[in-house]
Parts: sequence; C-alpha cells; structure tokens
Amino acid sequence: MRIVVTNCNTTQEMTEEIVRGARAAAGPGTTVTGLTPAWGPESAEGWLDSYLSAAAVIDLLRTYESPYDAVVMAGFGEHGREGVRELVDVPVVDITEAAAHLACLLGRRYGVITTLERSCGQIEDSLELAGVGRNCAVVVGTGLGVLDLGDTARTEAAFLTAAERACAAGAEVLVLGCAGMTGLQRVVGEKLGIPVVDGVAAAVRLAESLVALGLTTSRAGSYAKPVPKRRQWGAPPPGRPPSP
Amino acid sequence: MRIVVTNCNTTQEMTEEIVRGARAAAGPGTTVTGLTPAWGPESAEGWLDSYLSAAAVIDLLRTYESPYDAVVMAGFGEHGREGVRELVDVPVVDITEAAAHLACLLGRRYGVITTLERSCGQIEDSLELAGVGRNCAVVVGTGLGVLDLGDTARTEAAFLTAAERACAAGAEVLVLGCAGMTGLQRVVGEKLGIPVVDGVAAAVRLAESLVALGLTTSRAGSYAKPVPKRRQWGAPPPGRPPSP
Amino acid sequence: MRIVVTNCNTTQEMTEEIVRGARAAAGPGTTVTGLTPAWGPESAEGWLDSYLSAAAVIDLLRTYESPYDAVVMAGFGEHGREGVRELVDVPVVDITEAAAHLACLLGRRYGVITTLERSCGQIEDSLELAGVGRNCAVVVGTGLGVLDLGDTARTEAAFLTAAERACAAGAEVLVLGCAGMTGLQRVVGEKLGIPVVDGVAAAVRLAESLVALGLTTSRAGSYAKPVPKRRQWGAPPPGRPPSP
Amino acid sequence: MRIVVTNCNTTQEMTEEIVRGARAAAGPGTTVTGLTPAWGPESAEGWLDSYLSAAAVIDLLRTYESPYDAVVMAGFGEHGREGVRELVDVPVVDITEAAAHLACLLGRRYGVITTLERSCGQIEDSLELAGVGRNCAVVVGTGLGVLDLGDTARTEAAFLTAAERACAAGAEVLVLGCAGMTGLQRVVGEKLGIPVVDGVAAAVRLAESLVALGLTTSRAGSYAKPVPKRRQWGAPPPGRPPSP
Amino acid sequence: MRIVVTNCNTTQEMTEEIVRGARAAAGPGTTVTGLTPAWGPESAEGWLDSYLSAAAVIDLLRTYESPYDAVVMAGFGEHGREGVRELVDVPVVDITEAAAHLACLLGRRYGVITTLERSCGQIEDSLELAGVGRNCAVVVGTGLGVLDLGDTARTEAAFLTAAERACAAGAEVLVLGCAGMTGLQRVVGEKLGIPVVDGVAAAVRLAESLVALGLTTSRAGSYAKPVPKRRQWGAPPPGRPPSP
Amino acid sequence: MRIVVTNCNTTQEMTEEIVRGARAAAGPGTTVTGLTPAWGPESAEGWLDSYLSAAAVIDLLRTYESPYDAVVMAGFGEHGREGVRELVDVPVVDITEAAAHLACLLGRRYGVITTLERSCGQIEDSLELAGVGRNCAVVVGTGLGVLDLGDTARTEAAFLTAAERACAAGAEVLVLGCAGMTGLQRVVGEKLGIPVVDGVAAAVRLAESLVALGLTTSRAGSYAKPVPKRRQWGAPPPGRPPSP
Repeated sequence: MRIVVTNCNTTQEMTEEIVRGARAAAGPGTTVTGLTPAWGPESAEGWLDSYLSAAAVIDLLRTYESPYDAVVMAGFGEHGREGVRELVDVPVVDITEAAAHLACLLGRRYGVITTLERSCGQIEDSLELAGVGRNCAVVVGTGLGVLDLGDTARTEAAFLTAAERACAAGAEVLVLGCAGMTGLQRVVGEKLGIPVVDGVAAAVRLAESLVALGLTTSRAGSYAKPVPKRRQWGAPPPGRPPSP
Repeated sequence: MRIVVTNCNTTQEMTEEIVRGARAAAGPGTTVTGLTPAWGPESAEGWLDSYLSAAAVIDLLRTYESPYDAVVMAGFGEHGREGVRELVDVPVVDITEAAAHLACLLGRRYGVITTLERSCGQIEDSLELAGVGRNCAVVVGTGLGVLDLGDTARTEAAFLTAAERACAAGAEVLVLGCAGMTGLQRVVGEKLGIPVVDGVAAAVRLAESLVALGLTTSRAGSYAKPVPKRRQWGAPPPGRPPSP
Repeated sequence: MRIVVTNCNTTQEMTEEIVRGARAAAGPGTTVTGLTPAWGPESAEGWLDSYLSAAAVIDLLRTYESPYDAVVMAGFGEHGREGVRELVDVPVVDITEAAAHLACLLGRRYGVITTLERSCGQIEDSLELAGVGRNCAVVVGTGLGVLDLGDTARTEAAFLTAAERACAAGAEVLVLGCAGMTGLQRVVGEKLGIPVVDGVAAAVRLAESLVALGLTTSRAGSYAKPVPKRRQWGAPPPGRPPSP
Repeated sequence: MRIVVTNCNTTQEMTEEIVRGARAAAGPGTTVTGLTPAWGPESAEGWLDSYLSAAAVIDLLRTYESPYDAVVMAGFGEHGREGVRELVDVPVVDITEAAAHLACLLGRRYGVITTLERSCGQIEDSLELAGVGRNCAVVVGTGLGVLDLGDTARTEAAFLTAAERACAAGAEVLVLGCAGMTGLQRVVGEKLGIPVVDGVAAAVRLAESLVALGLTTSRAGSYAKPVPKRRQWGAPPPGRPPSP
Repeated sequence: MRIVVTNCNTTQEMTEEIVRGARAAAGPGTTVTGLTPAWGPESAEGWLDSYLSAAAVIDLLRTYESPYDAVVMAGFGEHGREGVRELVDVPVVDITEAAAHLACLLGRRYGVITTLERSCGQIEDSLELAGVGRNCAVVVGTGLGVLDLGDTARTEAAFLTAAERACAAGAEVLVLGCAGMTGLQRVVGEKLGIPVVDGVAAAVRLAESLVALGLTTSRAGSYAKPVPKRRQWGAPPPGRPPSP
Repeated sequence: MRIVVTNCNTTQEMTEEIVRGARAAAGPGTTVTGLTPAWGPESAEGWLDSYLSAAAVIDLLRTYESPYDAVVMAGFGEHGREGVRELVDVPVVDITEAAAHLACLLGRRYGVITTLERSCGQIEDSLELAGVGRNCAVVVGTGLGVLDLGDTARTEAAFLTAAERACAAGAEVLVLGCAGMTGLQRVVGEKLGIPVVDGVAAAVRLAESLVALGLTTSRAGSYAKPVPKRRQWGAPPPGRPPSP
C-alpha cells in the first residue's frame, strides 16, 4: 500500500521527520512517500498560514503524478482536508481528526497539547467540524513555535507543563497537537502514565484501514468532484496570461 | 495479534457470522477468536436486552483466560464498552463507535441503517456518548428484527429503502447498524454508489491500529481499574451462598 | 400507593437506609418496599459495577411478583432505567434524573456532589441522556467511596468542601449524588444556605405524582415491551442447559 | 397545603377552568386558589402578550396578601417565572417546564401540541431555558387561538391531527401546550394510546412535592431577592406622581 | 433617519446618558430621541425588574405617537425585544444582541462585563436566544449596581478587574454589559489593548443599517402582528372598569 | 470611508456586479473599490475552490498597496476571513456572517438560499464558526451554478422554489447565499412578503459601522499578526528560487 504524506509547510526537514514517524507507525507492506509543497509557508502558525498551506497542499497533490492509495495530511489543525477529498479518488486522513478518533477510543475525554496559544482556536474548529469535538476537554498551547520544536528537552518540559493543565481540565488521553512533535508520544506518555496519541501515526493507521476495507470518500453531496473550470494556482508570471 | 470478538447475544451462529466478517477485515498476522456469552439474550433488541447483554459480555471476558491483545465488542448500539474498558488492560473497540469513526472520514454526514425502529434511540445515545454523534445525520430502522436478517434478499431490499430515507436526510456515507448485517456492505454499497461501513470490520481495523501503536485505555479518571469488592454474576444457585 | 425502591447493590443495610429516606419523603397512604438485588456488586462505583447492577436490578424486578404501582431506582448515575421502563407497566423513576428535575425548578444551575471522582463522568452521561444535563453546572467528587459514607462527620466535611467548588462553578442548588447520602440534605442545606436535593426523596415524590395523574411509560417507540425470546439471567449452573 | 394558581390572562372563566384542572390533580389536603391578574391581556398569544402577562402576574402576586405555600404559573410558554422566583419565598412551578419534566420520565422524546403556530418558538425558548429542551422532539401548532378552545370537538380533532405530526417527528409522549386545554389529556391520551401530560396537573404535583420536601428557590445567584428600589406597576393615573 | 432609543428604566438621567452615547455613535442625518418609560423600575437588575421593564417599554412605544424609523432598546440583558418586534413596523435592535453581533466580527470569542453577578444568567439567556451565544466565552459581573456606575473611577477599576477574568476565560473582545456604562469603551479599550463594544453604539449603527437597506422585522411566523384583543396596561384606577 | 470589496474568484464581471451591489448599499461618503484576485478559480463552488480562493484573496490584499478603511469579503461560504483578519489592521467582514448577523435581527430563524447543493455544508460550517449558526433553520440549494446566475428569470424562479422549502423548515427571513445573487433581494422579497438579506449589502453596512465606531479586529489571541517568516505565494517560476 502506498501512502503519500503531505507536509503543510515548505520545510523539507520537517517532511523528513514526519515521514520517519509515519514509517514507524505503518504496517508491513506500506510504503510512505513524503511530499513537500513547492510553495506556502515555511511553518504553519495561524489562519493566514493555514489557508496558504491548504492551497499549496492541494496544488501539490493536483500536480503529483505517481500513483498512491491514500493521503495523510500532516498539518495539525491546518485547513484543506475537504478540498483534497474532492480532488483525489483515494481516502484522505488529516492528522488532527485522526488523533482525535483514536483518542476517543482510549478515554472519556481527551486533550490536545499544541504549539502557540494562537493555534488553539483553529484546532478547536478543526475538531468540531470533523465531528469529534464533543469529547475534547481542552486544547492547550505550550508557547513554543513550530520551528522551536527541535530542542527536545525544552519541548518535553513545556509539553509536561501543558499536560498538567489538560489533565486538570478533565483530559484522560492526550494528543500531540503538531506534526513536528511526532516521536514525543512515547517518552511523555511514560512520564505521564496516560496514553499520548500522535496524529501522524494515527492517520497512517486509519488510512491503511480504509484502504484495506475498500472504503473511500463519498461522492454524494459535499465531496463531489470539482467542476471543471479555469483555475490559476498562484500568480501568473508577468507577461503571461493565466493558463486555461 | 490476537483479537477476541464478543457477540452481544447467545446465538452461536451469529458469533460465527461475525467472526467471518472480522476475519475478512483483519490484517495478516491477526487471529480472530469469537466469544459467545454463556448467558444473556438470544438477540439484543432494546434496552432490557442491551443491559442484560452488557453484564453477560463483561462476565464473559472476566472469566476468559486465554491471552489476547484487543477486544472488539460486536453489539451495535449495545451497552457495556466502558465496563470492559475498566476490566481489561488491552484496547477495547465497540462496533458502533468504530463504524462512526471511519464514516466521519468518508463524508461530511453519515447515516445508520439498523433493524427495528426501537433500536434507533439507543444507537443515537451510543454515538453521542462516544463523541461521534455530531456528524450523524440520522438513524433509520428497517423494521427487521435481528434474527430476520438471515433472509438476505429481504434484508437487502429493506436496507435500500431505508438508505433512501437516510440520504434524503443528508447522509453521504452509510453504516450497517447491526453486527448481523456484516457482509452486506459491498453489495449495497455498489447499488447505492456511496461508501457503506461495517462496524465489525471497522472495529477490527481500529483495534489492530491501537495495538500496533502501543496504545491502550487510559487508567486516569473514568476507566480506572474496578475497585476490588464482592460481586455476584447472576443469581446464586439455590442453597449456596454468594461467592466472595 | 405501593412504591418499590430498588437498591443498585447487594448491601442490605444500604437498602434499609434508602427505604428510611424514601419513607420520610413519601406522602400519606404510600407504602415503600425496599428490594435488594440477589446478585450484583456490593456497591456500584464505575461502569463495570453499573452494568452488572443494571442487569441484576432488571432481574430483580422481573422475578418480583407482588403488586406495586411505581418503581424508584436508587442508584445515582447507575444504568438500567430504560430497561426497567420496557419491563414493567408502571412508572419508573431513577433518582439521578429525579433529583435533577426538581433541582431545575429551584435555581438556574445545579451541581451534583458525588462519591469518587470516577463516577462523575457516568453521572454526566446519565443526566445528559435523561434530558436534564443543560442546567447542570458541574459534577464534583468528594473522594469518598460508597461504603465510606457511614462516617457522617467525614462525609459532611467532604461534602461541604466539594460544595464550595460546585458553587464556584455556578451551582445555585445542589444534588446529593449517591443514594447512600440520603438524609444529609437537611444538615448541609442549612450550613450552605442553599437547597440540597436528595434523589431518593425526589424520585418518590415524582413516582407518586405520575401514579396520581394516571401517567405511565409510553409504549410508542423506545420503550416498547421486550420482544419475547430466550434470555438467560446469569451463568447457568454447571450440568444444566439454559432455561428456555 | 395552599397552592395559588395564577392565570396568565384576565379571563376569569379560564382561571376557573384551570382551577378545576388543578383541583382534580391535587393531593388530599391541598387547597387551590385561582388568581386572575387585574390587568394584562385577555389571552396570551405571542411575545407582546407574554411580556404584558409576566408583569401583570408578578404584580398580582406582589399585591396578594393571603398566605400560601407554593405558586403554580398557568401560562404555557409565557414569561415571568424567574421574576416570581425572585419575589416570593415559596416554590414556583411554571406549567411549561412542569409538563416537560414529567414527560421526560415517560418516554425518550416528547412533543408539545399548542394553539397558534406563532406560539411555537416561544415555547421552544421556554423549554430550552428551563433546561428540558433536549428531549423535546417538536412543538406543533393546531391553528386554534386560546379563546377557540371552548369548542371541544374541534379542539380534539385539531389536537389529534397535530399529534400525528408530533409522533412522526419522534414524540413518544405528548404535552398539552396551553392551560386552556386542561382536561383534554385523558380523552386524547386514550385515542392516541400514548401518555398525554397536562401542565397544570403536572405543576400542581411538582409544587406539592417541593413543599413536602421542604425545598424552595435558591437565593444564591440568579434568584436573589429583588433589590429594594422605586418601581411603578402600570401608568400612574393622570395628575398623580408615581408612588415611591 | 429617526431613531428612538428606549431606556429600560424610569431614571431620566440614564436616558440622557444613553442618548448622548447614541448620538455620538449615530451617522450624519440621524436624529436620536430618548424615551423614558412612564412606569417600571428605576433601574433593571434581575428578572423581576426585567419583566416589569419589558411591559413598560412596550407600553411606552404603544402610546408613543411621533413617527420614527427604528427602535433601539437600551436595556442590556433585559426582556422585551420580541414583543416590540411584534408591535412596531420598523426595525428593532436590542443593545445586548447588537453588541454581540459586532463583537463576533472582531475576535473569535467575546466576553461581557456587566454590573451585579445576578445579571449574568439573564444576559447569557438573552445572547443564547438571540442566536449569538456560541462565541461568548463568559459573562462576568463587576459587583456594581446600575446606579453605582456614576462613580467613573470606581467603575473603571472594577471593569478592568473583571476584564482580566474575561480574558483568562478566552475573551478576545469585550462588551460593555450595561447601558449605563456607555462612554467607558474608549478608555478601557485603550488600557486593555483590545476592542470594547458598547451596545448602545452598536445598536444605533445596526438600526441605521437595517433602515438604509430597507429591511424590517419579518411578519412570517414568530413576530406576526399582535391579534387585536382587550389588553389592560397596568392596574385600572379604582372605580373604573378596564378600558376595552 | 474607503471599503475594498474582494471577489472570491477571478471573474471580473462578477466583481463589477458585486461592486454595484456594494455601492447601492453604501452610505454617503463611502467609496467602494472592487478587487479581483490575480489567481484562483473562476468561480468558487466547493471546498477545493474555496481554499484556492482563500489563498488568492489573502495574496491579493497582501500585495494591494492603496489605503483603505475596511475589507468586505464577497465569497458566500468561502474560506479566508480569519486569515485576512490576521493580515490587515482594519475591520474585515465576510458576507456570509454579515447576512446572518442582520437576519438574526429580523426574525427568530433564518434560512439561506444558495447555488449548488454541494455548497450547503460549507455554508453551514461557515455560519457555525462565525457564531451565528444557532438560528439558521436551513441552507437550501437551488441547483444553479454560480455562473448560471446571469439568467435572472431562471434564477428568480429557482430561488422562489427553494424559498418555499426554507420557509417550511421554519425560516422567517431569507439570505441570498451567493454574492452573484446580489440585487435579487428586492424582487424576491416582495414576492415572498418576507425580508431577504443580501450579504454584500449587509457586509458593507457592518464594515461602515465598525469603522465609524473606531473598532477593529482584536490582536489578542486568535487573530494576532502573522509571525514574520518565509512564505511563497504560488509556485515559483521555473529556474528561480523562492523569494525570501
């Protein structure tokens, strides 16, 4: 089974890290290909970045020509999943919803630990629309930016502090609220003594499950194929008319 | 990986059918063992049956001594999952929630097609508490009892009629609302042209995913281990005091 | 009017205490009979106990042959009420919902003070499904187990501490969140200066009201009579086939 | 026990009818006194009438000097209950919420059958704020005005037609959505084969229950005593300054 | 454009202050007329006052004979807007909802700072029914009564303290929760560095917008014209029958 | 006051039409400038288009250098508003939310009439997150694509048919669910006898109101300024590295 994992930003190192996490989670026989958008933000933090990222990721898949069986979208709380569902014929799993789906199976309420406080609202919205917001006790920020996550000792400490707040708010399970945290789940899970779900790993397994069961996105209603029309993906180079 | 699948009723044939469905969905390397409660209702239809079934299934697992890696509870809309989560140390997935989790990934709204109208409310409650009720457009009954499902032509026809109502209510994906419908998904899915999710298959794949990712039920808060105390499982035989 | 009050556990002393509370609340002309399940947990704390209790209480009423006019189910947050509604032809009132119904009439928001923290989620679910969760500000645990409630000084102190948290969360009325707390309402109510509702008392009065008004459970839809079928209530004694 | 029942309008005949219904529902030892506002609308249909009625009913109780143990407010969907709770020291039960509280005990979903379509929204709001809106399946109008209800054959026929719509929407129990329908419950209940709750009867029983249990409105938070200040109830007669 | 602004209480000074705020907010060409009810409470704090105020304000407009193009109702959290919508043919905007509508455009969550704690629940209800409760993070009381607001230093200090609590609860925008706070928005907004919305100003601008767009209250459904009937506004003078 | 109105697609004619509608609604002294994205879809129908449009509109404003006082985003149900709020320092009003805000003031429930059925879900999500979903009775599609709206007779007929469904679902006010319908409100409003709100007009008036009141987006929490970082808006031309 061939899964493509799309990074939500243009930072190649992050794609590689996500791919490592995805491969560690994938079943035997699954190949994981990481895709980095050709354009977009170097990290996605806030709505402006998220919308830029959404268009860039859709463009990435629109122009990607190798065959694959499922898409994992590795932008925690980022936009775009419904657009990708319209575009491709294979199952699409976003790591935000994926983590929440598994977390719901592990405790009565879950909490999300993310990067900057400004991302919390976006994540809440994403969970709500995915249909899994009800059992989310809280989304907590660590105050770290996406590109600060390289310092693992600091990240771990900030995560544990935020985790306390989440547990006090009723969380019985935690979710890593950023693709860049992938790999952290085991160590913090052991320290906290509660399950910690990584969205990348969760999404890979859910994508595999859908493929194995022969299931893909419904074309009835919301996620119908895009109507053919003129679309321009990014500003046309000066002096050239938009392509038809 | 060893998955035990618990039937919610005492009908051995239904256990066998469920096991067939579970095995068809399971990944390579997974063994599926079907367990039939030693007591309970011969089919679960309504709340009285559901509560009887819940206690019988918990008792079944309490006294089952072989090792296993995950539990799939095959009673659509039936009670008991939180009790089993307290009891066992491995992941527990109920087919009701499992089907809904996958359905949420396939369309913006899903619908459930079940047996008798009287079961609809119970299923709605189960989805709500599992945290996946938001995107459920409707739960529709076919008017068929659990034990009527053997007649596949009639079941299929009743399913298609109910499916129309579900789609009119906004469902873009359907869920088989009874373990006894397992196997129906492919044929009705093709006729309807939309994805149809079988809870047994979904639960097997979700259980495998949790095990593969090293995740199990949180012991913090709701699903702590049961406190040791005197419990009597069923009426004591006349002339014998309850066991301690 | 003859009310039977079912304890949710097998501890006879608790049945007696509940009956005392019920009788103190009952109107003139009402007789109260306490029923203790022949099997089940010695106290109900958590979901496993709750489901075991639900089946045992249904079995208790199934095999109880004296006439009665209403059932009060005295397990705060315990499962089973919908099953009993299917089974019997008289009104059924669960003390969880009963307390909430009266509390809603006494203040804009109410809070529940219960035993162990692990019970809070179960109570929240019970109130939500009963349709009275909206005005519940919070459910707070005292940290005491059901069988610790005998020490009234300690119970009272723990209750008052928990009550402060509930009031800070917006509760204007409190509910005793365990049948074993029956009798506590007057003393803590006076100390706190706000109304405290005991579920047993509330349920007795609501049951009397329904009987007096000639109202009983609807058979349309959810709570239809159980379909006749083979049901086995507890493990069959070795060497004997299940009864038909 | 002395219950005062306040009509929401100035029509004396309706007060008498309501009192008849209240007395039929009251327990032995309860006396029922009907009070008609000295001012207000002759029937309450819509928000303007409802607010006028609310002030008039509060004024009525403010100036009523005989002792009583509880208030029943007999305006279905009409405003005012929170104001009366602030004013008096005894329990206050509004027939809208009362009917819903009992209906929740009798089925999983209830429906309300009222007079004009324009009242439906007001009733929905009233149920929602009372905390019992969740299990309300639908509020249906009969098209009859309050003062048309005298023609019982026509009322009954209109009720049965509306009841069909309510049952199709999932109602398992019905509520008479107007104090002027009091008395209709038995005959339509029999024809429909489901329980029909009259709010006046329900409120009388709930008021008796609260009094018997020594419970009254909380003064903590929302329903504190009104702050003493200058208030003028109705336009001052020409030539006279407002009373202090 | 002629806007009438109705005070919710009989205190003429407050009407004047509200009018000053309204005029400061109004566009060129808009005239603002302040109307003080001939009866009602001298300040509205709590439900009793609110219902009295609602009737008095409706009566005020019922008997006001000059022409106008829109009504602004200046009682924060007070009842009556639906009744006025039935009564008059021009747009009606209540300052509670108005402030919330604009606040929703300025941040993801807003908070309300009001006078006494007892008013918080009433405001929450008002926002909920107006359809703008979802993004309200919290309603916080300052502990000041309406008539204490004259002391601006004290009011400002109390406002800033309450604002901290609101921001901690997630508010990104604040709303002045009392018509008597009008004018405070600029100074506290600067100190807090976040937008502060005054309901009076918001309502004036919304009313102007509706008039300019030729929009007025729908007569379909809820806000149909009141049915002609006998209505008495306040107690009839002794010795005179109610007017027809 | 200078308002820029951004079209959500690249069709210049639609920008012109929107500007006509905006100018018709604007107050004296307001200048309206229409902006057409340099890239994106030629019409926005569905999520893929919507995300492409969001990025293109943000890019449009990012590179637009003339001064302005407010932004109106003219894509009904389209994404992007939160990103624009982060980007610019002036108030931002999306026509989806704008129409809903005004509609809430005109009736108890409103309905939206849009183009293709596939857009309904997107609009529901947009209203929900804007905080104004509660009083939306229904979103109905006409079956017409955005570019079909030129045929006004057909559009009007389709609108009226859809309006009937919306009214049957409880809508008392209607909203034009596409910027391309601007101008239709008057004629259909008259035929239907209920208010019909055009989002472009509503947004212009709301933007003017915010500017007049000195209010703009909060920088606290969600809509903080974007963190400076490398962002690439569209695929880099071959042979050139992404700009920093």
